[in-house]
Amino acid sequence: MNNKKNKNIALTGGAAAAEALRQINPDVMPVYPITPQTPIVEAFAKFVADGEAATVMIEVESEHSAMSAAVGAEAAGVRAVTASSSQGIMLMSEILPIASGMRLPILMLVSARAISAPINIHGDHQDAMAVRDLGWIQFFSESVQEVYDNTLIALKIGEKVKLPAMTIMDGFTTSHSVENLEILEDAAVKNFIGEYQPKNYLLNFEDPKTFGPVALPNSYFEFKRAQIEAMDGVIGELGGIFEEYEKISGRKYDLFEEYHLDDAEKAVVVAGATAGTAKVAIDELRAQGEKVGLLKIKLFRPFPYREIAEAFKNVKQIAVLDRTVSFGSVAPLYSEITNSLYKKQNTKYKIQSCIYGLGGKEIFKDDIKKVFRDVWGSNETKYIGLK
Amino acid sequence: MNNKKNKNIALTGGAAAAEALRQINPDVMPVYPITPQTPIVEAFAKFVADGEAATVMIEVESEHSAMSAAVGAEAAGVRAVTASSSQGIMLMSEILPIASGMRLPILMLVSARAISAPINIHGDHQDAMAVRDLGWIQFFSESVQEVYDNTLIALKIGEKVKLPAMTIMDGFTTSHSVENLEILEDAAVKNFIGEYQPKNYLLNFEDPKTFGPVALPNSYFEFKRAQIEAMDGVIGELGGIFEEYEKISGRKYDLFEEYHLDDAEKAVVVAGATAGTAKVAIDELRAQGEKVGLLKIKLFRPFPYREIAEAFKNVKQIAVLDRTVSFGSVAPLYSEITNSLYKKQNTKYKIQSCIYGLGGKEIFKDDIKKVFRDVWGSNETKYIGLK
Amino acid sequence: MNNKKNKNIALTGGAAAAEALRQINPDVMPVYPITPQTPIVEAFAKFVADGEAATVMIEVESEHSAMSAAVGAEAAGVRAVTASSSQGIMLMSEILPIASGMRLPILMLVSARAISAPINIHGDHQDAMAVRDLGWIQFFSESVQEVYDNTLIALKIGEKVKLPAMTIMDGFTTSHSVENLEILEDAAVKNFIGEYQPKNYLLNFEDPKTFGPVALPNSYFEFKRAQIEAMDGVIGELGGIFEEYEKISGRKYDLFEEYHLDDAEKAVVVAGATAGTAKVAIDELRAQGEKVGLLKIKLFRPFPYREIAEAFKNVKQIAVLDRTVSFGSVAPLYSEITNSLYKKQNTKYKIQSCIYGLGGKEIFKDDIKKVFRDVWGSNETKYIGLK
Amino acid sequence: MNNKKNKNIALTGGAAAAEALRQINPDVMPVYPITPQTPIVEAFAKFVADGEAATVMIEVESEHSAMSAAVGAEAAGVRAVTASSSQGIMLMSEILPIASGMRLPILMLVSARAISAPINIHGDHQDAMAVRDLGWIQFFSESVQEVYDNTLIALKIGEKVKLPAMTIMDGFTTSHSVENLEILEDAAVKNFIGEYQPKNYLLNFEDPKTFGPVALPNSYFEFKRAQIEAMDGVIGELGGIFEEYEKISGRKYDLFEEYHLDDAEKAVVVAGATAGTAKVAIDELRAQGEKVGLLKIKLFRPFPYREIAEAFKNVKQIAVLDRTVSFGSVAPLYSEITNSLYKKQNTKYKIQSCIYGLGGKEIFKDDIKKVFRDVWGSNETKYIGLK
Repeated sequence: MNNKKNKNIALTGGAAAAEALRQINPDVMPVYPITPQTPIVEAFAKFVADGEAATVMIEVESEHSAMSAAVGAEAAGVRAVTASSSQGIMLMSEILPIASGMRLPILMLVSARAISAPINIHGDHQDAMAVRDLGWIQFFSESVQEVYDNTLIALKIGEKVKLPAMTIMDGFTTSHSVENLEILEDAAVKNFIGEYQPKNYLLNFEDPKTFGPVALPNSYFEFKRAQIEAMDGVIGELGGIFEEYEKISGRKYDLFEEYHLDDAEKAVVVAGATAGTAKVAIDELRAQGEKVGLLKIKLFRPFPYREIAEAFKNVKQIAVLDRTVSFGSVAPLYSEITNSLYKKQNTKYKIQSCIYGLGGKEIFKDDIKKVFRDVWGSNETKYIGLK
Repeated sequence: MNNKKNKNIALTGGAAAAEALRQINPDVMPVYPITPQTPIVEAFAKFVADGEAATVMIEVESEHSAMSAAVGAEAAGVRAVTASSSQGIMLMSEILPIASGMRLPILMLVSARAISAPINIHGDHQDAMAVRDLGWIQFFSESVQEVYDNTLIALKIGEKVKLPAMTIMDGFTTSHSVENLEILEDAAVKNFIGEYQPKNYLLNFEDPKTFGPVALPNSYFEFKRAQIEAMDGVIGELGGIFEEYEKISGRKYDLFEEYHLDDAEKAVVVAGATAGTAKVAIDELRAQGEKVGLLKIKLFRPFPYREIAEAFKNVKQIAVLDRTVSFGSVAPLYSEITNSLYKKQNTKYKIQSCIYGLGGKEIFKDDIKKVFRDVWGSNETKYIGLK
Repeated sequence: MNNKKNKNIALTGGAAAAEALRQINPDVMPVYPITPQTPIVEAFAKFVADGEAATVMIEVESEHSAMSAAVGAEAAGVRAVTASSSQGIMLMSEILPIASGMRLPILMLVSARAISAPINIHGDHQDAMAVRDLGWIQFFSESVQEVYDNTLIALKIGEKVKLPAMTIMDGFTTSHSVENLEILEDAAVKNFIGEYQPKNYLLNFEDPKTFGPVALPNSYFEFKRAQIEAMDGVIGELGGIFEEYEKISGRKYDLFEEYHLDDAEKAVVVAGATAGTAKVAIDELRAQGEKVGLLKIKLFRPFPYREIAEAFKNVKQIAVLDRTVSFGSVAPLYSEITNSLYKKQNTKYKIQSCIYGLGGKEIFKDDIKKVFRDVWGSNETKYIGLK
Repeated sequence: MNNKKNKNIALTGGAAAAEALRQINPDVMPVYPITPQTPIVEAFAKFVADGEAATVMIEVESEHSAMSAAVGAEAAGVRAVTASSSQGIMLMSEILPIASGMRLPILMLVSARAISAPINIHGDHQDAMAVRDLGWIQFFSESVQEVYDNTLIALKIGEKVKLPAMTIMDGFTTSHSVENLEILEDAAVKNFIGEYQPKNYLLNFEDPKTFGPVALPNSYFEFKRAQIEAMDGVIGELGGIFEEYEKISGRKYDLFEEYHLDDAEKAVVVAGATAGTAKVAIDELRAQGEKVGLLKIKLFRPFPYREIAEAFKNVKQIAVLDRTVSFGSVAPLYSEITNSLYKKQNTKYKIQSCIYGLGGKEIFKDDIKKVFRDVWGSNETKYIGLK
C-alpha cells in the first residue's frame, strides 16, 4: 500500500533524480558538468551544501576522471554515483567496462543527448546506446516519477548483482521539465536500499583483495563468463525488487510496460519520454475503435528477450521506434525485438524499424498515429520527423 | 591478371599493414603506441625514418589526441591514418563519431585486443565491436594477405563515400605472425588509390568551409540521414572497387567469402583469423562427406544483410561465432545474422550463437568440428573453450 | 595582553596551519596532495569532514589546476587557500604570476622541500625561492607557533593590499614535528581577519568587472607599476597588523626578528627552522662572552631592505645562511643582504655567503658555532654540512 | 680570419636561429607553438620538411611535455633542442631543474615575452628571468647576428659542461625583425660543434646507467655541489670557445661587451636588443663630448661577477636597465651589478636601477640619453617609458 507519509511534489527530472540521490546519500560523487545533466548535479550539490546529504562531491577535470574516481571509490568500499550526458559518456567509454569488469555497482544518472558531429546539445538516445554493450544495467525512464523510481531500483539491483547501472532520462524533455511525482519517505528509501555492504573492497584490511589485475588467456574468459551470468541474473532478481518497491510506493513495475497490448493488433515499441506521447495517441485511436497498443521499454540491459517475445500475444504488426542510429546496421531497439521474436517462428510478425527524434527533433502524437496508420513491415527504415 | 612485378614476401600482419601504408604514403599519421598495434607503427616509423614514406608522424600523448589530430588533419585537407588497439580505441570513442559525422575518410588500422577489466593484452574483437555503430566502415581480415589488401581497399572506399574506415586484424594471431603474401607494385597502388582530392577542406582558401558547427534540432537529423545514406552506399560502391582490385592483384574479393557454402547444410559464420581455422576443419569434414561450409565476414559495417540472407541457399543450420560479448544482449555478429534472416520467414533456420576466444583464448580446428557436430539451434549461447 | 581563553596545545606545523585554516574557514580550497604538505591537508580535510569548517575542498588533478581553481574562486569573490610543496609549486609556476597580476589575495601554505633532479622529498627552501619574484608576499616561519601566527597575518595583509601570500614552513622539520603553541580563540581570529569583502569580483552582478584581459604595450607596464606599489605597500601596512595581532595574542612581531643583535659584532642571517638552532648556538656562545647575534628573516617578499640595513648597528661581520642555491648566481638571501647594505657605503661589512641543508641535510648548533668561529668575508661561498 | 665562404643574408632573429639549428641538425626537437617563438619553429620545420635537417620534430601537447620529451631524448643519448616563450617557459618550470639536475645539455631558444596577468604577447625579459636560477646557462642576444652566433656557442658550452643552455632574443623586436647577418659554412659549424658524444646515456647498453634516481639527504647536497661547480666552470671554458669561434667567424666575443666603457664616467648596463639602442645614444652623446659607455650583458648565467667588477674602471655612475621586475625585490640585473661591486669597497659607485619596456613598451634612444642625463644613484627605482 502507498505510504500516507509520501510526498507529492512537482519537480524536473533532474531535480527528482537529485531527490533520490539525497535519500540514497551516496558516499562519493565524482562528477563533471555537461548539458543537459546539470539539473541533476546542481540540485544535488545544493543538498550537499545545505548539509542534507553527506556525500563527498569530487570536482574532477573530465568525465574520464569522473568515472575513474567512481571506480576508485567503489573499489575502496563505498557507494559512488555520477551523472553525465553525450560527449561525457563517450569520454567515459574506456572506463565503463572497467567498472563492470571489476563488478563495481556504480550508479550513473544519464540525461541522454545527441553526440557530435555536428554539435547538438538536445535529447536523443545516442549516448546511452553507444555504450549499451559494456556491461552496465540500463533503465529507460518515461516520466519524472519513473526517473525517481528507477534511480532507487537501479541502485538496489546493481548492488545486488554487483554490476554498475545507469538510468536514462531524455535530455531536456525529462531532465528540464516539471511534472508531478510522489517522493517516498526518507526512512522508507533508507530501508529499501539498505546499508552498503560490499563483500570485497580495498579498504578491508582484514580480508585484503586486489582489484583490476592482469588476467591471462587462461582466466580472462572465465571472468567474462561470470560477468555475463551476473548480468543475466538481473531479470530474475528484479521480480522481488519490484514487489518490494510496490509495497512502499504503491507503484507496480515490471521489466517493461504493456499499454493496451493485450488485445492489440498493432503495437509500437518505444523507450523513454516518447512513451508518454504514444499513450496519448493510443488513447485517441482506441476511442476510434482501433486495436493499438504499446510496449514500453524499461529494462534495456539486460534485454528481456523471452518476456518480450511472450508479450506480443495478438499483435501481428510491430513498429519499433529508435531514438538513435547504428550506422551501417539496424537500429538497436529494433534489433532486439527481431532477436526476441526470431525463434518464435510459428508466428509471423511484420516488424518495422522507425528512427525518430535525433538531435532533439520533436515527435508528436500525430506522428505516432501516422505510424499506426501507415508504417508496417517494410524492409526500409522509416524516418519520422525528417524534413 | 596478376601483375608479374608483384612481390612475394613473408611478413607479419603488422608489417604488411605498414607496407600498405608505405605505398599509400599518407600525409599525416598521429599515433600513440599500444600493444598489439606496435608492429604496425614500428615498421611504418622505420619507413619514415628511412625516407621511404613522406608521412608526418605526430607523436601525440593519448589516443584521444591521436584521433583528434587525425580529424584535424583530414579536415585541413590531407590523408590521415592512425592505428590502435583495445583501451586506445575505447579512449578514442568520443572522437570516432566526430570523424564520421564530419565525413572525414580517416583510415585506422586496428590490431584487435580484449578490453579491461581485468587487464588482458591478447586478441579478441571486443574493441572493434564496442565502436561498431559509430559510423566507421569496418573490414575484418583473416590473413596477412587480407590485412594488406583490406588496407588499400578500405582507404579507397572511405575516400569514395567520405567516411572513415577501419581494418581489423586479430591482435597477435595476425599482427605478430609471419605469413606469405603478395605485395603490389608501388605504382599500381598509387594508381589504385589515386591522389587525394577532398572536395571540402579547411585549407581551401578559394572555397572556404566550416567544419563541426552546431546543428540545432532543425538540421541535425538531416545531417545524420545523409550520413546513413553514405554508409549504405558503401555496398554498391564496393563492387567496382573489388573489380578494380582484382585487375591489379588477381585476387577476387566480395563483401564476404563463401567457403563450400553452396551445397552446405550446416554453416559457421565467423570474422577474422578464426576463418582460417574453420576452413581447415571444413576441409577435413568435407573429406568425410559432411556438407559443411563457412560464411566469412569481411565487410562488417555496413552489414550486407540482404546479400548474406541470399547466401544461405541450402543451409538450414547456422552457428555464428563471435569473438566478443555484449553483456545483457545477444552477441553482435549473431544478432546481425538473425536480422539478415528475419524477413526470410518462408525458410526456417536454426541459428546458434557461440562465443569464443575472449582475452586471447585459443580456438582449434577440433573446436570448430565440435561446433559442426554438436551445437545447433539452442536458445542458450554456447561458450567455446571455456574451462 | 594575552587572552586568557587562548589554548595551549602541542601540534605539528602542518596541524597548526590546519588549525589556523579552520578558524579562517575559507570558502574554497583546491588542493593536490604532495609530501610534505600532506599533514596540512589531512588535518584540515578532517575539520571539513567533521563539519568544523565549511570550506569546499576541490580535489583537482594537478597543482596547475589547484592554483587555477584558486584563481577562479578568488576572482569569483570568495576566500581561496591552497597548500603545496616542491614539484607542486614548480608546476604552479605558470599560474602564480596570474594570481598576483590579477591582484587576488589567495593564501598558500608551503611546506618547503627540495626540487628534482635528483628526486628528494626532504626539506629545503628551493621551491619557495624559485618563485620568489612572481608577486607573492612570502613569510618564513621558524616554529610551529610562527606557522600558526603567520598564516593569520599573511591572510590579512594579502587581502589588505590585494596580493596573494604564501607562508613557508620547513618540510618535515616543522611540518611533521610537534611543538607547543598557543591557539587563539575562534572569535578573536574571526574578528582579526574580518569578513572577506572583495571590491572587484566576477559574481558582483551590480558592478560587473572583467578579469584577466589583454593589456597591450600601452597599458601593461602601468598594471605592473601598480602591482609593484601594492607589494611595496606591504611593509607599511604590516606595522598596524602586527600591533593588532599583539593585542589578541600577546606575541609581538616585526618584519624580522633580532636576537642579541643590538651589541653583536658577528651575526648570522637565516630564515625558517634553522633560526631556532642558531638561537641555541648563540645562547651558548654568549655564555662564553662572545658578541654574536641573529637576524631572523620573517618577511621575505617584499624584502625590507632599509629596515634590515638599519638593524646591523654594531655588526661588522655577517654570515648569510641560504637553504637554497641559485646556479650561476649568488644565493638569494645573501644577495638581498648585500643589496640592503650596498648603499650604506660609509660602513664596511664583511659578508659571507653560506649554503646549507639542501635536500634535507641536517644542520646542528655546532655547525652554526663553526660559522661564528671560522667563516667571514670570503669571496667564496661556503657549504655547510657537505660531505 | 673570416671564412670567405660564409654567406651574408638578411633574416629575422627567428629565421637566423632556425638556420643555426639546421646546421646543428639536432636529433630531436620536441616543441609546442607559442607567440613569439613561432618564427623559429616555422622556419626550422620547413627545413625538416624539405629534408635539409634530419631532426625528429615531436609535436607535443604542452610545453611541460616539450621539456619532458627533451629530457627523455637527451637522457637517451641524443641532441635535443626546443624553443619557447612566456607562459610556455613558465609551464616548463617544473622540468627545467630536472634537465639541469640530470646534467642534460638541452638547447632552448627563447623568444622572450611578458608573462600574464594581464595577458600580453609582446617582448620583455620576464620569462627568461623567472627561471634564471634553475641551473640553465643563459645568453642574451642583441642582434640577429648574435642570435645566430649564441645558438652555436650555447650548444657547445652546454655540451662541454653538461648543462642545458638557453639563448634569449627579444620577442618581436629581434625574433620578427629582419637584419643582415653572416652565416657560417655548414662544414665549419659541423666542425665547431662536433659530433655529440654523451658520456652517460640510457641507450648505452654496454655501460648502463640510471637517470633521475632518488637522492636521500646523504647525497643530494653533493649532487647539487657538483652542479654548482659545473655551472661555475662555464666562465673558464668559454674563453677557448670564443677564440675558436672567432677563427671561423671573424667575430670576437667575450662574456660581455664593453662599448666605450674604457674611459666612460657614466655607464648603462643592459641586456638584449636595447643594447643596440643604447649604442646609438652613446654615439650621439660621445659626439657631444660626453664620457658615456655601455656594458652589454651577454652571459647572464653564470653571472661573471668578478670580470664585470673589473670592467668599471673609471666609471663612477652606473644605471642598470632591467626589462623585467622582481616584485618586492630589486630588479635582477641591478642586483647582480651591486653584488659584483659589493666587495670592491674601496670604490664608491652610484648605481641606479631602472625598469623599462615591460609588456613590449618601446624604449627609444632619447630615453637612454635621458638616463645618462638625469638618473643616478637614487634609492628609488626609475621607470622608463611609463605613462
